[in-house]
Amino acid sequence: MQIRPAGEQDFEAMWSIFSTHLAAGESFPFTSATTREAGHAYWLGSGAATFVAVLGARVLGMYRLVANQVGRGHHVASASFMVSPSAQGAGVGRMLGEHCLGEARRQGFLAMQFNHVVSTNTAAVRLWKKLGFSIVGTLPKAFRHRRLGYVDAYVMYQLLQDPDHWPTVDA
Amino acid sequence: MQIRPAGEQDFEAMWSIFSTHLAAGESFPFTSATTREAGHAYWLGSGAATFVAVLGARVLGMYRLVANQVGRGHHVASASFMVSPSAQGAGVGRMLGEHCLGEARRQGFLAMQFNHVVSTNTAAVRLWKKLGFSIVGTLPKAFRHRRLGYVDAYVMYQLLQDPDHWPTVDA
Repeated sequence: MQIRPAGEQDFEAMWSIFSTHLAAGESFPFTSATTREAGHAYWLGSGAATFVAVLGARVLGMYRLVANQVGRGHHVASASFMVSPSAQGAGVGRMLGEHCLGEARRQGFLAMQFNHVVSTNTAAVRLWKKLGFSIVGTLPKAFRHRRLGYVDAYVMYQLLQDPDHWPTVDA
Repeated sequence: MQIRPAGEQDFEAMWSIFSTHLAAGESFPFTSATTREAGHAYWLGSGAATFVAVLGARVLGMYRLVANQVGRGHHVASASFMVSPSAQGAGVGRMLGEHCLGEARRQGFLAMQFNHVVSTNTAAVRLWKKLGFSIVGTLPKAFRHRRLGYVDAYVMYQLLQDPDHWPTVDA
């Protein structure tokens, strides 16, 4: 398995993975009414660094790395991840997560924040904890789960560099 | 003092308030490098409901109400507030906050979330608590404060309707 920057040639496979997750309605805020154009803008639009995990010609999953805020919050990254349902349980999410943390450090981000991890998505919560994230907030009933109704979402967070070595704030 | 929807005719005054806060660098992620165009899109662009507090012809402050997420998180509102430095301490923030909560309920939002309340902005934290918000998360060093360096930001949240009466989730 290889992780490399995503390109236009990957979009069909990415859209297929994206659509499957949106139809399930269990892990991501987008509904199944999301248009192909919106999906394209999200995954391949400007402002995001997107990577795919591939095995030969097959796309197994992807992630999207962005700044979580503008300006005075721009040192904190955010990211979202999707793994093909047919590749789940094979460590793809973990490899993507590790790659994403490395890429965020490489880009100079000082911390990473997930804004909306669905609390019932226990596999994801467990994985992010293994990769160094902590739950720093709980958003009551913030996610409208297709099967379970309104469930909590977590804010997860980790510092990516020792704060003693963060660049000085120069106004 | 009156609170009414903001219009193009208010933008000069809004831009002046916005610029002053950005120059201070103590409460909002935007830096002082933010362009007028970006400021206009933020306050008067599509997707947001923006209101101003006015006394005669004078704009004392404003808020911007949006959905915090798409789709399955769309029932949670978010908002941001700015008060003219020359009108601080006069209860403008409180009136805007109360109006915003009413407007969010009127629009059908079920909860409200502030994503990034700067922890050192104690007047704001105190006001939001008075208006029913709780700190549900702490983001370590997530705000690059112009004077104080990296400081924590809070996620604040409150339900706007009794969850027993929330609309059913219909897939």
